[in-house]
Amino acid sequence: MQNKNPTAVIALGGHAFIRKGYRPTHEEHQIAARKIASILMELINRDYNLVITHGNGPQVGNLLLQNEHSPEEIPKQPLDVLVAMTEGSLGYIMQQAIINELRRRGIHRHVVTKITQVILDQHDPAFKNPSKPIGPFYTHEQALELQENHNWEMAEDSGRGWRRLVPSPSPLKVIQRHTIKDAAMQGHIVIAAGGGGIPVVKQIDQKTGDFSYVGVEAVIDKDLTSSLLAKQVGAELFIILTDVNRVFINYNQPDQKPLGALNIEMTEKYLDDGHFAMGSMRPKIEAVLDFLQSHGKRALITSPENLSKALQGVDGTHFVGTI
Amino acid sequence: MQNKNPTAVIALGGHAFIRKGYRPTHEEHQIAARKIASILMELINRDYNLVITHGNGPQVGNLLLQNEHSPEEIPKQPLDVLVAMTEGSLGYIMQQAIINELRRRGIHRHVVTKITQVILDQHDPAFKNPSKPIGPFYTHEQALELQENHNWEMAEDSGRGWRRLVPSPSPLKVIQRHTIKDAAMQGHIVIAAGGGGIPVVKQIDQKTGDFSYVGVEAVIDKDLTSSLLAKQVGAELFIILTDVNRVFINYNQPDQKPLGALNIEMTEKYLDDGHFAMGSMRPKIEAVLDFLQSHGKRALITSPENLSKALQGVDGTHFVGTI
Repeated sequence: MQNKNPTAVIALGGHAFIRKGYRPTHEEHQIAARKIASILMELINRDYNLVITHGNGPQVGNLLLQNEHSPEEIPKQPLDVLVAMTEGSLGYIMQQAIINELRRRGIHRHVVTKITQVILDQHDPAFKNPSKPIGPFYTHEQALELQENHNWEMAEDSGRGWRRLVPSPSPLKVIQRHTIKDAAMQGHIVIAAGGGGIPVVKQIDQKTGDFSYVGVEAVIDKDLTSSLLAKQVGAELFIILTDVNRVFINYNQPDQKPLGALNIEMTEKYLDDGHFAMGSMRPKIEAVLDFLQSHGKRALITSPENLSKALQGVDGTHFVGTI
Repeated sequence: MQNKNPTAVIALGGHAFIRKGYRPTHEEHQIAARKIASILMELINRDYNLVITHGNGPQVGNLLLQNEHSPEEIPKQPLDVLVAMTEGSLGYIMQQAIINELRRRGIHRHVVTKITQVILDQHDPAFKNPSKPIGPFYTHEQALELQENHNWEMAEDSGRGWRRLVPSPSPLKVIQRHTIKDAAMQGHIVIAAGGGGIPVVKQIDQKTGDFSYVGVEAVIDKDLTSSLLAKQVGAELFIILTDVNRVFINYNQPDQKPLGALNIEMTEKYLDDGHFAMGSMRPKIEAVLDFLQSHGKRALITSPENLSKALQGVDGTHFVGTI
């Protein structure tokens, strides 16, 4: 039942289709999903097996805020469960849009969202150094209280108030990699690892020696998880859709220069030279590099609007690895 | 990659592992999931391909209540999206517990939750006759306002206040049936169609004639969806876990009698004779009957605690169909 088609993993930015800092309604989510679905047909037309990942920043932010305002009798849910919820809701909205687009074009492929756990190393130094702000803004007084009573790490965020910081460790393994790969290789379109995946660690029972996976309060960079997943499903092509058509060196400086194509060596050099902003383009380039260094053939960074042109080789930033 | 093992679909009641009317914390969900996981090993030990469905009543109720208390700036989510969220969160909690139980026993099978849409007939008479109370209780005044401004159907509920009524149409098709079947037949353990599935209808564009699936504000009986799914994945065995060890006739009367085994004819007769309570045992028996009439071989209704004994043939109510 497996086909011989190549597999592509495509990572959609949480903001690639939703304006930053904006709280979209359900209708706006649907409109955005329809647009993305139509763009994805470029890969379907090229007969790729397809795995789609996506961000969840604005949506998990909403859930955290709702948690805060929830009536007392409703137990609060930890971050891992909230991520699982956004995998469900965004996965549903996207799979519905993709199914509709496929049927409209008379293409009979199936689409499914898989709830995806991602294993982190509990000894990852990131756990000792929470760095990723999430959820609502608090006053200084509230921040002190939360620090005291919930053991939250709090930090002032660009003059707008205080926010909780959580760790953002590196993803080690995607637990559902086998079922994702099996489905993709049968031609099913799979939406997986939304929001970077549900963060879990291995915990060893001191008495029995048994291990369990347990959820943790952390967020995983969605591009790093996507790259890992691309490796683990044996993808040939890894695409990151983001806000810009191309990657730049000397970005936002008078001599900024868009990049058309890079090999592994050039990518490493630009990274080392510090061309890419932390928390923005840098993790994307690192994700791409990691994929190429693990025998990935090609990668691409571009915007949703320019995917079509980029696939024709006339836009986007292309990365080449193994032939 | 497909195996020759028979497939079982097992439907877990939303209340089979959570006390009715109670709002469980995350820890309590986890404890319940661990218990269920250990019970499910009875089927794993018998080498079944396994598809697990579950209810979501208490959890979707919590989300509806949170929606109500949400700050103004967070757009409210419709019921189909909330169902998708509970498929994500409960699927995650259950898949984690099952994976942990499998690994503890040295069994290498994969587990994945699939976000599942279920098609309803938009002309189903249930849409004109909303019957299923959901979400929080309101005062009479609030109820009138909601009826007026949101076009909600409201009804007084057993003296405790007013609640919204939504339609509960019959499920026609499980959209993800192919990917669920493919995964199950590869031996992957699939959690699907949580909460009866995400309710969608086919909508035809008047101008273009194109159709789309769109979400609707409805709830689908989880036992009916489970039976449909059991048929659509070609299951041999369909199990419903509920609060009682066995099905009774003359239930709660002096001459009540537990049933050990029934064939199709007996099941039809007891149904016709009105032995089973609407909204409780009746839909379960209807779900079982529908499965058997569509060439299902065996079905079983019992409680989680008695699954093991029932599988040995000494407890539960067994239903026999095709040989």
